Amino acid sequence: MKSISKRDKENIWHPLTQHKRSPEALGIVRAKGSILYDESGREYIDGIASWYTAMYGHCNPHIIDKVVHQMQKLDHVIFTGFTHEPAVKLAEELLKILPKNQNKLFFSDNGSTATEIGIKMALQYHFNHGKPRNVLLAFEEGFHGDTFGAMSVSGLSVYNGPFEDFFLDVERIPIPNSNNIEGILKNLSSLLSENSIAAFIYEPLVQGAAGMKMYEPAELDKILSFLKDNGVVLIADEVMTGFGKTGKNFASDYTHIKPDIICLSKALTAGLMPMAATSCTLKIFEAFYSDEVGKGFFHGHTYTANPLACTAALAGIQLLSSIDIQNNIQRIISQHKNFQNRIKSHPKIASTRQCGVIIALDLDVPMARYGNLRDKLYQSFMDKGVFLRPLGNTIYILPPFTISVEELNKIYKTIIEVIDQLISK
Amino acid sequence: MKSISKRDKENIWHPLTQHKRSPEALGIVRAKGSILYDESGREYIDGIASWYTAMYGHCNPHIIDKVVHQMQKLDHVIFTGFTHEPAVKLAEELLKILPKNQNKLFFSDNGSTATEIGIKMALQYHFNHGKPRNVLLAFEEGFHGDTFGAMSVSGLSVYNGPFEDFFLDVERIPIPNSNNIEGILKNLSSLLSENSIAAFIYEPLVQGAAGMKMYEPAELDKILSFLKDNGVVLIADEVMTGFGKTGKNFASDYTHIKPDIICLSKALTAGLMPMAATSCTLKIFEAFYSDEVGKGFFHGHTYTANPLACTAALAGIQLLSSIDIQNNIQRIISQHKNFQNRIKSHPKIASTRQCGVIIALDLDVPMARYGNLRDKLYQSFMDKGVFLRPLGNTIYILPPFTISVEELNKIYKTIIEVIDQLISK
Repeated sequence: MKSISKRDKENIWHPLTQHKRSPEALGIVRAKGSILYDESGREYIDGIASWYTAMYGHCNPHIIDKVVHQMQKLDHVIFTGFTHEPAVKLAEELLKILPKNQNKLFFSDNGSTATEIGIKMALQYHFNHGKPRNVLLAFEEGFHGDTFGAMSVSGLSVYNGPFEDFFLDVERIPIPNSNNIEGILKNLSSLLSENSIAAFIYEPLVQGAAGMKMYEPAELDKILSFLKDNGVVLIADEVMTGFGKTGKNFASDYTHIKPDIICLSKALTAGLMPMAATSCTLKIFEAFYSDEVGKGFFHGHTYTANPLACTAALAGIQLLSSIDIQNNIQRIISQHKNFQNRIKSHPKIASTRQCGVIIALDLDVPMARYGNLRDKLYQSFMDKGVFLRPLGNTIYILPPFTISVEELNKIYKTIIEVIDQLISK
Repeated sequence: MKSISKRDKENIWHPLTQHKRSPEALGIVRAKGSILYDESGREYIDGIASWYTAMYGHCNPHIIDKVVHQMQKLDHVIFTGFTHEPAVKLAEELLKILPKNQNKLFFSDNGSTATEIGIKMALQYHFNHGKPRNVLLAFEEGFHGDTFGAMSVSGLSVYNGPFEDFFLDVERIPIPNSNNIEGILKNLSSLLSENSIAAFIYEPLVQGAAGMKMYEPAELDKILSFLKDNGVVLIADEVMTGFGKTGKNFASDYTHIKPDIICLSKALTAGLMPMAATSCTLKIFEAFYSDEVGKGFFHGHTYTANPLACTAALAGIQLLSSIDIQNNIQRIISQHKNFQNRIKSHPKIASTRQCGVIIALDLDVPMARYGNLRDKLYQSFMDKGVFLRPLGNTIYILPPFTISVEELNKIYKTIIEVIDQLISK
């Protein structure tokens, strides 16, 4: 019998993969808590919670039980003209934990659609008011998804190369710090005078795909405040940062100025299945609420607000709000801080940064994002039973909230061993 | 206790809905087979299988059992660098039933992403060959999704109004018939000489959102053949038509010229949860297979190839291939044909058409797509316990394959009653 890996290779095209340069995909047969088990029986700690989704551990019985129950009752129903308890309850619970200015939820299926919906809401908001604006504003190196609208606002060229001629008009600013913030605000002044900027889309506090780049809420607030005064719709892309990862429920909880629109996905469904949500203020919703049919928002995906995904999301929010998980978050933050103190003076570490359960280390070694050295680093971790996914020379950990003290310590230990090996070569 | 409908209204923004003109969303609490049950205990036959997804009936125990089993073992794992049995097995089974020229599968989450991926593959195919082409070709009134790339190729203005200034360049042709085909081919000749057309995206045989507009494979083949000879990548959007609805597994089974790329979603996961797949030929895949990292396809969604969705899809394909379901499809086709013969001479029916389990009737009454008269029609069906979703003055049925003889007869009877009422007014 052929291995899963071999059979995979014959038929499957993997995301973000240059197949000619990549090893065969590893066949995973089972997962439980923080551990992935491959087809040869080896174990790996899932150090990035399978792209920041499985925050309550894989195959969490609390979540599974609820979804199994829902599955017997109502698997799915079209969400135009119809509704159901899991969606209604989820909207209620989400709005309890989202920033207070959020008022309505629009469901979809993944981070790309969540941001496309945010962008479309913002553009149509101005359009419906009879004052169309046609330029978007985003951070350099932001990442907001892979569909054309989402790609347009993303600033990472590796994803965009062949498609850049097809993009929406976007102006870019760098992420702020205490040195460049005055320059950014000046630049924004002139950008606003030259363009009709409809919306600003940003990953608050942490830019995930850029390599867990972090910046401070104080400077972000200055940007948000200036843009808000100029009628620019603020879209917080919390697909990565949402649901406790920054230490608070949402990264937007750290800023005084709250976004008009928030994009959610990934951990929303507690690592079980795809779903996304875009929330917005009453001001945004009301711009579409009209006797004119055409002012409505004519966007919809077939499985919108899938009852199973809503049920998983509800179970996830219950866990997130529990004392256990909140304690775990604090414990991980404190473990991270200790590790950071130990590692930051390491001769091969250029810099370290941490926000909530996210910790990132930049190696003092140049590495291409998808280069050979990065691939070796990846394999060294895997050989030691730890799944991490370095972005170029940035090693980061974003573990499930349920990771044990020992599992997390093993990740730290492995990172040090692998870096030490790097030096000795 | 407030009803689900009332609670819904406070927090949820529904897809494709002008909330000011729409009644409250109906709270559905349970579904089984072809029947939806609302919170007041009323029953409705789901005459469109919840947007062409629940083709094996709601809460089908065969499907649920398999997914429950998978959920205990591996809920999800990142699909970059990893793979798993449900994805590998699904790819094997899909490629067995897809047109023989299809060779690789790329997974995503919904119809919009499936078509965006198809479009991106086609554009980058030419780009990687060093001969970039920048215009897309599509049918008038086609519908391919709601993200910016998918919207660009869609030709239904109700969905596009506020966003048209942001679209990719698209040329359009009408769907063919024996009268206009020569004109279309001539027009294509000049379009191709004036533009560098990268790809043609089309809903084969049936345009769903346009109102189940149907056209013949013979004329489609002429268009496909001409475009293929001119190096245009052919993208069949089978999100709606796929998985038995046209009487064959795929609408592309009716054409001699097979597409280079096929987009699948909706019934793919048997009505359980979101997932999509974009298949392609080896020729497409090989244009990306290179020592150059940048020639790879840098597209990926977090829950790509979710094991639960793959498991549901596998269970669905098992059912689709079963004698029971194949017999059901033939029985529905024959019931539809009988009904069509009875109704086509009705004084209020302008025209009828049928393809596989899809039957559509155009009323001899002008109706806006989202107008009052159409809404009355909708409500009249609901009052009689039948859920249909007229598109303007087009009434169509696309029932679950598992619908009973009696349930389908009740839909026919209700349609006749409602049309007769229309006349008497």
